[in-house]
Amino acid sequence: MMGAPGAAELVSSRRALTLGVGCSIGDHGGTLSNLGQVRRNVEESDGMTYCVGVLLKEAMVFASDSRTHAGVDNFAQFCKMTVFERPGDRVVVLLSSGNLAGTQAVISVLKQRGDAKDAVPNIWTVRTMFDVAVVVSDAMRDIERRDAKHLESSALTFNASFIIGGQIKGEPLRLFRTFAEGNFIEAGPDTPFFQTGEAKYGKPIMDRVITPTTSLTDATKCVLVSFDSTMRSNLSVGMPIDLVCYERDSLKLSMRRRFESGDPYFTALSKEWSEGVRAAFKLLPTLQW
Amino acid sequence: MMGAPGAAELVSSRRALTLGVGCSIGDHGGTLSNLGQVRRNVEESDGMTYCVGVLLKEAMVFASDSRTHAGVDNFAQFCKMTVFERPGDRVVVLLSSGNLAGTQAVISVLKQRGDAKDAVPNIWTVRTMFDVAVVVSDAMRDIERRDAKHLESSALTFNASFIIGGQIKGEPLRLFRTFAEGNFIEAGPDTPFFQTGEAKYGKPIMDRVITPTTSLTDATKCVLVSFDSTMRSNLSVGMPIDLVCYERDSLKLSMRRRFESGDPYFTALSKEWSEGVRAAFKLLPTLQW
Repeated sequence: MMGAPGAAELVSSRRALTLGVGCSIGDHGGTLSNLGQVRRNVEESDGMTYCVGVLLKEAMVFASDSRTHAGVDNFAQFCKMTVFERPGDRVVVLLSSGNLAGTQAVISVLKQRGDAKDAVPNIWTVRTMFDVAVVVSDAMRDIERRDAKHLESSALTFNASFIIGGQIKGEPLRLFRTFAEGNFIEAGPDTPFFQTGEAKYGKPIMDRVITPTTSLTDATKCVLVSFDSTMRSNLSVGMPIDLVCYERDSLKLSMRRRFESGDPYFTALSKEWSEGVRAAFKLLPTLQW
Repeated sequence: MMGAPGAAELVSSRRALTLGVGCSIGDHGGTLSNLGQVRRNVEESDGMTYCVGVLLKEAMVFASDSRTHAGVDNFAQFCKMTVFERPGDRVVVLLSSGNLAGTQAVISVLKQRGDAKDAVPNIWTVRTMFDVAVVVSDAMRDIERRDAKHLESSALTFNASFIIGGQIKGEPLRLFRTFAEGNFIEAGPDTPFFQTGEAKYGKPIMDRVITPTTSLTDATKCVLVSFDSTMRSNLSVGMPIDLVCYERDSLKLSMRRRFESGDPYFTALSKEWSEGVRAAFKLLPTLQW
């Protein structure tokens, strides 16, 4: 669908790193707001991040942590959420996990292709969320084609994966997740959420709470509780947490929040959850031998 | 410490499979009660089992699931708990995870060496739990030496790991876990439990509840809840669950239980836990945007 980007395309237009609530691209896009000069090759395995996308009947929830590392002696903070928003037309949220150099390059290519004044379909011009997923997949494969053989020489693989969701005018809410090979699956009523990265610690509460008819309020709480469980057990998943909620057919984002370490709401949620779980545990029946 | 077992030693004395509550070796040992003719090469990855050992001040808890598989089309049931008990002298519990052919061979070698009337130190004759761990490690390495090159030809590795715990007269309670390479670590007050296999789903509740001073009653409930969470999320961990609790200085096992599918206590625990967690969730504060 698209040609492989040349080296010049990949390295051009890198600007200073800006971290906001998510990394937003305004109206038409065009600015590259979350790409910085990354001088170190910060390698991040798929287990070293945590991203969740939830597809409800009436809304969607997206959240990502911000920790990356290249070994325990080299932690850093990068936004893993990218928003493509054109109010009244489309809201697309991408959550990245995997090798940071790879995921950043994919996002960069998506943005540059979105800015290009050519006829090649891009994230701003395609008509369905399925085609958005195809555009992301194409970008992944282009980067993989460029980088894979060089990674191999250090026994690394190109391991990016994305959660892609949102709505384009005239379409329903849709949620996808890509695999490292660039193929992807779509969520449905039976499986209304996707997790990438360090998914296991936070999955039990998601399994218990999330259904397509869960309220947005409850789904948001649940996603944050699943982050709390994950961060408690895996140091390589860390604050801040970027959270976006999107209401069906609004075609704009009005609920965004970044939870920094020490955030009063998140701290209260974590404490009350801990106490509630302990209280529930205390009430369990005792085994009679 | 011990020579590599010959092929004859490894294949002799295999008897019909007997599944009890754990797989117990009486007084001096000598009977091989949990080894059967295993005609299929049931390969089991490290993530496809769940075992927990807990070291409390006053007691220990051990539990293991019973599911093995070689692909989703080939599930089977095998006991992963082996008990070496000589009342008044020692209680040693082994929980196995990893490739089933490998773990069974290690247990078989440990039993045969325990039966041998020679001067080579074995699980019945060593004087400390540390030496028990060394004996297990030696058996692992012997099996690895024998099998590894053959597994390599199918791109498999020898991936057995064991949780080893109990008490020998004159010693405190001690708990170890081995790694695939045969080296091992010992639990202490800071880390009073070990998990092997599919550990992540069940770890959050263990992290919240288990400390060295947790009561045996609570630790037992907690271990079972962690099995419930794990089985809910990973089909390759399954009933029955073998559970053993050991009280300090008793030097005999009086609390053993096997939880079959549909066990009334386990079912009630699972249901009440689910309801309690949901109730705790409902009480959490709502995010104000």
